Amino acid sequence: MDHLTQILLQLFAILVAAKLGNEVFRRLGQPTVVGEILGGVIAGPAVLGVYEVNAETELFAEIGVVLLLFQVGLETRLHELLRVGSTALAVGILGVILPFAGGFVAAELAGGDLSLAIFLAAALTATSVGITSNVLRDLGALRTRSGRIILGAAVIDDVLAIMILSVASGVAAGSFAIGNVLTLLGVAILFIGVVVIGGTRILAGRRSLLTDPEFAETPLLPGMIIMLGLAALASLVGLAAIIGAFLAGMVVGESSERHALEAEVAPVAAFFTPFFFGFIGAQVDLAGLASVDAILLLAGITALAVGSKFVGSFIGAIRQGRSRAMLIGWGMVPRGEVGIVVAGLGLSAGAIDSEIYSVVVGMAIITTLIVPPLLPRLVRRAETKATRSAEGEDGPPAGIEDDDGIETPLPG
Amino acid sequence: MDHLTQILLQLFAILVAAKLGNEVFRRLGQPTVVGEILGGVIAGPAVLGVYEVNAETELFAEIGVVLLLFQVGLETRLHELLRVGSTALAVGILGVILPFAGGFVAAELAGGDLSLAIFLAAALTATSVGITSNVLRDLGALRTRSGRIILGAAVIDDVLAIMILSVASGVAAGSFAIGNVLTLLGVAILFIGVVVIGGTRILAGRRSLLTDPEFAETPLLPGMIIMLGLAALASLVGLAAIIGAFLAGMVVGESSERHALEAEVAPVAAFFTPFFFGFIGAQVDLAGLASVDAILLLAGITALAVGSKFVGSFIGAIRQGRSRAMLIGWGMVPRGEVGIVVAGLGLSAGAIDSEIYSVVVGMAIITTLIVPPLLPRLVRRAETKATRSAEGEDGPPAGIEDDDGIETPLPG
Repeated sequence: MDHLTQILLQLFAILVAAKLGNEVFRRLGQPTVVGEILGGVIAGPAVLGVYEVNAETELFAEIGVVLLLFQVGLETRLHELLRVGSTALAVGILGVILPFAGGFVAAELAGGDLSLAIFLAAALTATSVGITSNVLRDLGALRTRSGRIILGAAVIDDVLAIMILSVASGVAAGSFAIGNVLTLLGVAILFIGVVVIGGTRILAGRRSLLTDPEFAETPLLPGMIIMLGLAALASLVGLAAIIGAFLAGMVVGESSERHALEAEVAPVAAFFTPFFFGFIGAQVDLAGLASVDAILLLAGITALAVGSKFVGSFIGAIRQGRSRAMLIGWGMVPRGEVGIVVAGLGLSAGAIDSEIYSVVVGMAIITTLIVPPLLPRLVRRAETKATRSAEGEDGPPAGIEDDDGIETPLPG
Repeated sequence: MDHLTQILLQLFAILVAAKLGNEVFRRLGQPTVVGEILGGVIAGPAVLGVYEVNAETELFAEIGVVLLLFQVGLETRLHELLRVGSTALAVGILGVILPFAGGFVAAELAGGDLSLAIFLAAALTATSVGITSNVLRDLGALRTRSGRIILGAAVIDDVLAIMILSVASGVAAGSFAIGNVLTLLGVAILFIGVVVIGGTRILAGRRSLLTDPEFAETPLLPGMIIMLGLAALASLVGLAAIIGAFLAGMVVGESSERHALEAEVAPVAAFFTPFFFGFIGAQVDLAGLASVDAILLLAGITALAVGSKFVGSFIGAIRQGRSRAMLIGWGMVPRGEVGIVVAGLGLSAGAIDSEIYSVVVGMAIITTLIVPPLLPRLVRRAETKATRSAEGEDGPPAGIEDDDGIETPLPG
């Protein structure tokens, strides 16, 4: 069987598995994203082995989450995001500091060396906005105040992650320089600033850039070019590609072509996102978790990961009222593909061994599976009980109150 | 720069290059597919080198042409295809025999050994239906009688190509057995027969299979699953993946969900097909064509490739009248990615050297670039001048005559 045939079979297998998982969970009234991930577990190396993790399947997964965040960006208005800026900043920073400190101290207490401690801590700080924003989107809650805070905090989280990963890689390689870390940070912030301010100015209310090219009868291709370009550029400056895609969506979303673009992106994203969810599930490695020790370690690390991220984000969001802080705290918990990527970097840098790697991957997947079932109830409580007084914090709520309420009845 | 960043940049580069080429050619009133291929030449290794041919970019190209043929299949009705069966068979067979004989004799006269002769002959027989069908689609001429004959002949062509490639690989490996060749042929014909007859029976007029799954609000995902599955299966039995995708489109196109599916597949295909056209252009290797000898060889092989395929297909189609035979003859000429794949197989089997490889790739691209500019005129002449008497040949034309005429005014 030639290589391309194998890849086609694997893409077919993961698409079928993810969609069967979706079907079962939908009929059970459970979150479909969990079904798609479990479909990936079953098709992947852990069970059937008809799907494997390789460069091509990873690319499809990456394009899947890039399209997902592009869609989320399209539905996000910059001015609404800026209005929750200070809360998002608090959530992002506290939601990074607590897991980092927790992971670092735990690793040092267990007698690990410095580079293991830093990598473990880095894996614990990661946030996978893909999972939460997908569920919020299904619930129609992306543009609620809590949804916007989660998105804003995820962007800040990723900026901090650059610093932490840069420190971790420097320590592991024995060449740590604070200047390099600050340069990376500066470039990342500059990138976000230029894209957001420059991009929205260029596109706001105009349609010319998206419709002037004659190669496109619709704004789809110009939109896809901007999405791929900013995803690649974000990746180049050390940010996650999905942050670039999210910014691209937000910038393009300021143009008058937003609704036409949303309609056209929907089928492309519907085709691709199952590859992302299935890919996460396929990372499950049961062989690495075969000992009692490993399972106990997994339980401990997972508890630490959930507790520290929840508490940090909860404290950061507490001024929004208790039910919103609950939603935001839980919404930041999934580590998803980001935690897996960090663990993979630690493995290839020699900082962590294959047992710890399996444990961290297991933690990333468990945190990703437990949150979606909680979200419908948390969203309902947060967005109906939240008091008006808490909403004024980041700016005047007048005139935008409708965005904060739930416009459609929530399912579940 | 990590691997994923490189791939994202390359996908961005080829998308921009292909679409800039499209834009320029559209403004010049020339076929946009030629512009997209030339965009790939410029972005690729031959000029700028910002895009390279690797497993991931090849996968995107493959999915692009798979989606293209799926779309073509959606627009093709099985009973219309069967009605031109005998002409398609004649075109397919004669369009393979003449180029094969020409390539074989030429290589033997030039003193090449048997396996070189067979691989060169095989590369000359290849037909890339992707290019012609894309242009016919743009011209709205896919469902004309000539369009259907070209599609049917391309399927037959691919069945014969299995036999030839199997013989070529056997000879190159020194283990040729006629039994293997016949088994492959039997499996391929069985696959096509089962898919076409079984698939259309299952789906004809029904919508249940495409809309019963609750995971999908639209028929897109069920359609994509059938497409990927049949593409992988076709590839597994030795056929081209695009033949499976074409059959999948034709089968799904019999269901009542055809129009909904066409609308949703359009943006997915629009996103992907530029990666296919750009990929073809990026195969151009100017370094391999640096000597006068190589260029003369290229000119000779290209003339042989064009002449033999045109004459063979023309003779096969002559009973359809002279202008239709002209269109069909030229429509079969592009070798595109298929010729390149065959040349690559010959290179890795050690049957042809890297100079001959560059020459064959150059031939494949030239034959692909010269045809699209000719098609608008040929379509106009064939489908307005073709006499009624020629149409009766494959079956009674009554009641389907509208499908054969041009329904919309042709551009150009």
